[in-house]
Order: sequence, then structure tokens, then C-alpha cells
Amino acid sequence: MRIAIFGCGQLARMLALAGWPMGMRFSFVAEEAEDTRCVEGLGTIVRWQDSMTAQSIFKTLEEPDVITIEKEAVNTALLQQLSHYCKIAPNPEILWVVQHRARQKKFLTELNIPTAPYVEMHDKQQLLLAGESLGYPLIIKSCEQGYDGQQQWRIHNQEDARAFIEGAVEITHAIVEKMLDFTAEVSILAVRNTKGEVAAYAPSENRHRNGTLSVSIAPTEVLHPKLQADLETILNALMRNWDYVGVLAVECFIVDEQIMVNELAPRVHNSGHWTQDGAVCSQFENHLRAISGQSLGSTASLGHSAMINLLGCRAPDELSSLPHAHLHWYDKTLREGRKMGHINFLHESSGALQMNLSHALRLLSD
Amino acid sequence: MRIAIFGCGQLARMLALAGWPMGMRFSFVAEEAEDTRCVEGLGTIVRWQDSMTAQSIFKTLEEPDVITIEKEAVNTALLQQLSHYCKIAPNPEILWVVQHRARQKKFLTELNIPTAPYVEMHDKQQLLLAGESLGYPLIIKSCEQGYDGQQQWRIHNQEDARAFIEGAVEITHAIVEKMLDFTAEVSILAVRNTKGEVAAYAPSENRHRNGTLSVSIAPTEVLHPKLQADLETILNALMRNWDYVGVLAVECFIVDEQIMVNELAPRVHNSGHWTQDGAVCSQFENHLRAISGQSLGSTASLGHSAMINLLGCRAPDELSSLPHAHLHWYDKTLREGRKMGHINFLHESSGALQMNLSHALRLLSD
Repeated sequence: MRIAIFGCGQLARMLALAGWPMGMRFSFVAEEAEDTRCVEGLGTIVRWQDSMTAQSIFKTLEEPDVITIEKEAVNTALLQQLSHYCKIAPNPEILWVVQHRARQKKFLTELNIPTAPYVEMHDKQQLLLAGESLGYPLIIKSCEQGYDGQQQWRIHNQEDARAFIEGAVEITHAIVEKMLDFTAEVSILAVRNTKGEVAAYAPSENRHRNGTLSVSIAPTEVLHPKLQADLETILNALMRNWDYVGVLAVECFIVDEQIMVNELAPRVHNSGHWTQDGAVCSQFENHLRAISGQSLGSTASLGHSAMINLLGCRAPDELSSLPHAHLHWYDKTLREGRKMGHINFLHESSGALQMNLSHALRLLSD
Repeated sequence: MRIAIFGCGQLARMLALAGWPMGMRFSFVAEEAEDTRCVEGLGTIVRWQDSMTAQSIFKTLEEPDVITIEKEAVNTALLQQLSHYCKIAPNPEILWVVQHRARQKKFLTELNIPTAPYVEMHDKQQLLLAGESLGYPLIIKSCEQGYDGQQQWRIHNQEDARAFIEGAVEITHAIVEKMLDFTAEVSILAVRNTKGEVAAYAPSENRHRNGTLSVSIAPTEVLHPKLQADLETILNALMRNWDYVGVLAVECFIVDEQIMVNELAPRVHNSGHWTQDGAVCSQFENHLRAISGQSLGSTASLGHSAMINLLGCRAPDELSSLPHAHLHWYDKTLREGRKMGHINFLHESSGALQMNLSHALRLLSD
């Protein structure tokens, strides 16, 4: 079984490392200027050029059985063409919806899935109007190319709005969202295979630093069981509606004990890295099982897990070699704030986890 | 961190797959005619030739920080020379003892570790004498090149002995052991790092088919806690005595509720594959942590585990995609009786494990 992955980052790396033990082989599609260090050595890397046809890419990728992705920002037209040669999972149409914030918001709204109130904006001048209709504070999110808090701007009041309008940032298409006063950020991952079987992981609580995920804890203790059931209903509705195949992640805010969906990620997700060491079958193995026509692995938790992202730093030896720690390193060039790797912890009790997590975070901040 | 491994089989493959996530890189030493399919794609493969010096091998291996092994039958003199360039773990002297059955038996006897009564044999004619002193049934084990029941012969009575003496098999140096009437076969793996920390995994019960391991179950329920403590004492004694670094496996028989050590394996071991999915930190990750100067990972079990070897066969899809199954495939050419891969199962209860194991074994025999 050969799997090709669009993208050469850490998610592609971890998919490949989960697939190798099962005897799968991999190839990767890199964009022209993409850094491919994460996946070097794990399979053929094809650097995409405009002159290539779907057929020539398919051949250079060594005729994969399935093509999947590790990011939303992919050429969906190209994927559509490639679907004449092999299976594509998830479906390119889904990617086309999700990769664009306005399309995603509209889609969620149509399915009656609760999200933060928003308006679309094609011109910065519309910001004051948005402020009047939604009320401050607001957050502007570019429709494309935004991830980990990139291409996002927080607007706390009318003054901020005026400054933004007069500022240098150019906006062609964005959404302006009401900033929610949430009590927690949680996410849930589910996986659906080609037979339509669905399984969900325990939801995680996520903490961010400068817009980037820094810590996930699973199973979360901040989510009422009723809300967890609501989340699973939302995921099921999404997956069935789309005839979805693979892992799907949903990031949410908890506002007044209600769920508000923040965004969807049609792929394996940073907030599910804890499953590598904390679930019977990891999100990476399950994504591969799902897209390759197999039955799903159990998503049951093995205990109490946490994941710490290594943002722009190495892990001190003292941290990565703690007895319950597992280092996952991405082999990237060190750069400030960059996701360099993560460490997973698995403990029998929530108390032991909390104690070790505090210790680990202290070691990291020293 | 670069690790070089002597040997290119499935153990080398699984060490590399456990090390990649931690950012380690690998190179492998193959013997002249060795099949390297298991590790192709996972690092540089150096095919050893007589003309090579230790220095040239070290350079071709891309100057590893540590050299380790995946089998006992290695050139220990070469490893001794390589120890001038980098660390070798475990120590080549230990390998020299263990790779030769008579030396290993003598060593165990000197440490007062209980093993089956035996005599050395340099000439087949001595077999009848051995029969008289030990009593039948006997088992002849060649001192070198024996693994998975290879180079072993069972002698049930004097008639068998005479037939063997008249037969075609040539013996230069072997041990003749009293065949034990055991109630179970168990093994225990422990790991010791460069700082002298030791941790042991739960012992497993092992079932064999034609001399090759077919199923391991861990934690075993056939071992009295007192015997488990005895086993750990034996392992500790061995490791301290040797200043051992890495994973060490001990295979034992249970005879009249006593432990009899069958053999040592100074490496990761087939009977410890269940730890990949059934322990906090697998034997592979822990071996790498130990030899690279890190602290050890927890050896705690995550539940009730079983491992089924795929001997000369593929796993039916129905088996490998059971919810609690994890396929580990070695990418070898299919050959009768050959270890092609294994499947690990992890369950919350012993009852669920037994039920699923029976189901899995039925699927495999269909």
C-alpha cells in the first residue's frame, strides 16, 4: 500500500512514521519553496511545478493507492484531477470548503452548528460597520492562509478599528468575528472509514500561547458529558453529510456552558498528538486505517494524557527523559516560536498527570 | 544523535522506527549476503567486507555516537576495535559470552543461576555418554549459529542417540542438555542505562511452534509473584555484574514451580514486542534511551497484552484491522515459517484479551 501526502511538515512525518510499521510506503508533494526536512528519508519527495500534469505527478509519486493531505491549503483542483488516478481522502470538495474561512463559516451556519457571530469583509472600511452590528471586541481572520494565529488581528474597540483601517495591512477577503468570552478551549477528533464506521477520541482541553497551541490535556475535565455528546453529534453530522473519510478535528470554545465551534481541520491535528502514546490506536494510525479501507482501531484512552508543544526550543534532556515522557521531534531548523516537536505524557491518574505537567512546564520555562 | 546497528532484520527496523520520532538517525551494518529489506529506507546500509578497517566502517556508518546490535552473532573483535571510535552497547565482551552456548552456560552456572543440566560435546560419539550421565530425553544445541530452534536436535532415547551418531549432521562443538518437563515458558526483559538505572517489564508467557515463538501474553498469569521477584533478582545480578547497558532478555522454563533459565538475549527480543503497544515505553524506545545516555521510560503495562507472530504468512485484513490490533509488518519476502510480522493486542481485562486472542488465532488458522 502506497500513500501520498500533500505537504511535508510534521503531520506528514508522523503519518509516515505510523504507517511504516504497517508496511505502508509513502511519497510526499512539496510546494516550490516548502521546507521538506521533516519527511526527508521517509519516502520520495516530489516538488510540485506548474508544468506538471496530474498524470505526471501521479507517476512521480510512484502511483499511490490513496492521496491524503496534512494541511487544508492545497490545490483542490489538482486533487480533483488526481481523483481519476487513485482515491483521494478526504474528498477535495470538503477541503475546498474548509480551506476558506468564509466558506467554512457559511457551511457551519447552514448546518445549524453554533459558531461565533460574524460578517464577511472585502474592504477594511467595512470594519466599523461590523463593530456596530457585532459589538466589540472583534477578531479579523483572513479567509485564506491563516493558521496558528497567523493573518489574524484583534480589534478591541472603535479606536483599534480606526487604527487598523489606517494601517498597512491589506484585506481582500476576511471574516470579522465577535470575540467570545470563553471559559475553555476544547477540541474533539473523530475518524470515519470508507465503510462509514465512525469513532471519536476523548475531547482535549487546549491552552494556547500567542495563538499557537502549547498544551493539550485529554480527557478534558472541563467538558460536561452532555456537551461531549453534543460534540459527537456535530462530528457525526459533519462526517455523514460529507461522506467524510479520515480524521476530522473540531476546535471549540465553551461559552456559558455551550459549545461554539471555532474551526474545523479535515486532517490529523496538533490537539490529537496525545493519542500517539495515550490511546489504543493513535490518530495517525487511524487516519491511515480509515483511508486505506481498513476497520478502525479503538479510540479508547489509556489513561490521563498531556501534550506539550516545543515552540521554538529543544526539550531539555531532563524533560524528555522523564519516565512517562515521550519525545516526538520533527527534525526542523530551529526558529523562534516554531513547532519543533512535542512531548506526550501518559499517567494513570489525573493527579499524577497534573503534578508531572507542572514539573515539565517548569523545566521548559527554566 | 546517530545510532548504528549491527544487523538488518526486523529488530533493527523496529529500533529505527522507535528512534526516528525522537529525532535519531540510523545506519546499519549488513553481512555480505544479508537480506536488508527490513531496513531499506530507514538509514544508510553498509555491507561489511573483510577489507574494511574499523575506521573505514565507522566513517561509512556516518560516525555514529553509539553502535548497538540486533543479534548475538556479530564480529565481537570488530566491535572491540570500533569501541575506540564510539560507544558500543551492550559491551562486546558480553556478546562474546552470550553468542556461544557453552560459554553462556558456563557463565550462568558460575553465577549460580539455575539452568538445565548439560554437558559439552565436541564429537557426536560423546552423545551416549551424555545420555548415561543426564538421562533422556536430551536436546543437542550447536554452540553457534542457533536461533529459533535452528541447529537443535531432540534425542528422546538411546535409539535416537545412535541414529544421530550414524546420521549426516556434523557437530564440532555443542551442548547436550537435559530436556526439561516444564509447565510454562516465560521471559522477562529488563533495561539498564549508562547511569545504572534498571527497570523491568512484566514477564510474558510464551508459546512456540516448531521451535519459533508464536504467541506471547503479558503480564503472564502463570508466574507466581515470588518467582517474578526471583527473575528480577537474576536480571539485576546479570546486569550489575556486566555493567550492562541496553535491553536484556531472559527466557526461562517453569519446572516444579522453579525457574530454570533457558537462554539470554543481550538485545531487544521477540517476546517483548507486546511493549510497543502495551507498555508506557516500549523495549525499543527504552533500549535507545538507555544506550544514548538518557533516563529510562516507564516499563509499566497499559493493560493486558498479547503478541501473535505472523510465521510465513500475511495477516488477513479481518485480523489486522480488529479494533485492538496493531499490525507490525517487516517488509520481508514471504517464505515458509519466516517471521513476517506480528500483531499486538491490548485489552483492559484478561478476559477480553483471551476472547480476542482465540478469535484472532482462529482467523489466522483459517
